[in-house]
Amino acid sequence: MTSHDTGSADSGAAPKPPAKDPWDLPDVSGLVVGVLGGTGDQGRGLAYRLALAGQKVIIGSRAAERAEAAAAGIGLGVEGLDNAECARRSDVVIVAVPWDGHARTLEALRTELAGKLVVDCVNPLGFDKKGAYAVKPEEGSAAEQAAALLPDSRVTAAFHHLSAVLLQDTSLDEIDTDVMVLGESRADTDVVQALAARIPGMRGVFAGRLRNAHQVESLVANLISVNRRYKAHAGLRVTDV
Amino acid sequence: MTSHDTGSADSGAAPKPPAKDPWDLPDVSGLVVGVLGGTGDQGRGLAYRLALAGQKVIIGSRAAERAEAAAAGIGLGVEGLDNAECARRSDVVIVAVPWDGHARTLEALRTELAGKLVVDCVNPLGFDKKGAYAVKPEEGSAAEQAAALLPDSRVTAAFHHLSAVLLQDTSLDEIDTDVMVLGESRADTDVVQALAARIPGMRGVFAGRLRNAHQVESLVANLISVNRRYKAHAGLRVTDV
Repeated sequence: MTSHDTGSADSGAAPKPPAKDPWDLPDVSGLVVGVLGGTGDQGRGLAYRLALAGQKVIIGSRAAERAEAAAAGIGLGVEGLDNAECARRSDVVIVAVPWDGHARTLEALRTELAGKLVVDCVNPLGFDKKGAYAVKPEEGSAAEQAAALLPDSRVTAAFHHLSAVLLQDTSLDEIDTDVMVLGESRADTDVVQALAARIPGMRGVFAGRLRNAHQVESLVANLISVNRRYKAHAGLRVTDV
Repeated sequence: MTSHDTGSADSGAAPKPPAKDPWDLPDVSGLVVGVLGGTGDQGRGLAYRLALAGQKVIIGSRAAERAEAAAAGIGLGVEGLDNAECARRSDVVIVAVPWDGHARTLEALRTELAGKLVVDCVNPLGFDKKGAYAVKPEEGSAAEQAAALLPDSRVTAAFHHLSAVLLQDTSLDEIDTDVMVLGESRADTDVVQALAARIPGMRGVFAGRLRNAHQVESLVANLISVNRRYKAHAGLRVTDV
């Protein structure tokens, strides 16, 4: 079998050491975060947690009035706008739309998302009587589809394994989970990790390039099985990090 | 996006409750565990940890003398035999062979593995200058390939995310990680979970059917990225379980 220590930096054939401390992350407190699909459970939960942490958050939706209603429901200075205006006004744009509207939504926002840091958190899944199963997009993953559709944006992937129930539970002060962050540029993944770390209990952990996003996205099918068996809202922690 | 709470048992459309406590696992202390590919780093590490926990372990290899040498290196009552004899003598057979010998090895052992509980822990990965990436077997995953090649065995998948370095580090008393266990039969996955739980610090968590094994196997590519960035030997914990 292939041990995952293979290629580890301390296996002997070590490449050059990292340029800096991997936990030395940028200050992202001044960034405006948009959440496309922010009226859905996951998007609303993320918007709530980020706003609670002091981040300026804008919820985007196809219909501005639905975005406004979701924003009003959260309070904490959250605004609601239509998707295009949300993208335009934001520095970082979290994509939390349903998988079946993913390509269409992003294609329509190519101009507004140009130059933005895009964080895809969409999990392409199918469901049948046996539960959830992975769906593999032609591009490899939802994140790679986003990268293909948004050539002028900086696309990353993160926030896949969060429980929308826990995110929205106002009685919880902390979210006990790590967030796997994927992307091609260290500067971009550092920003997303720092954003995750703004939420108490949460930590952003770099977990590879976009070509390895499919398994991270589709692992949600396994977490659904975990939730069913244990009546839980499962998340993941990366150990030894 | 698809929240992983979807389909959760407490989401309203709850199916019948589990037949029993999910942590009420069988006593597996009397089972003989074979490790095919037990001369490799991962196999040797698993053999060591299981033997240390008091399990009777047999290492299998294509060449009996290499298996004997590996077993002697571990001690703890571990035996070394050729793969066929290892399979014949074992109740539970862990498959820890390299991916490129996976199909060939299992095909040759179909008779010996009939009726056995097989635990596949093989991660089909490719490597290039950018690191590791997922390889998708025609059957969907290594575990599904095993199930297709071994129609008379009870095939499960587990032990994918373990660090061979940590497993073999005799100064460590505990392995701080959960083990995702996949399979079609509750009785079989319970046995594998119980086996994982024999190792101090380790816990076996049911994580779905074999059709959802690919993402669990290929997540090792992400853990390799984690290891490189953080100079770690990463494992995973499932939270809220």
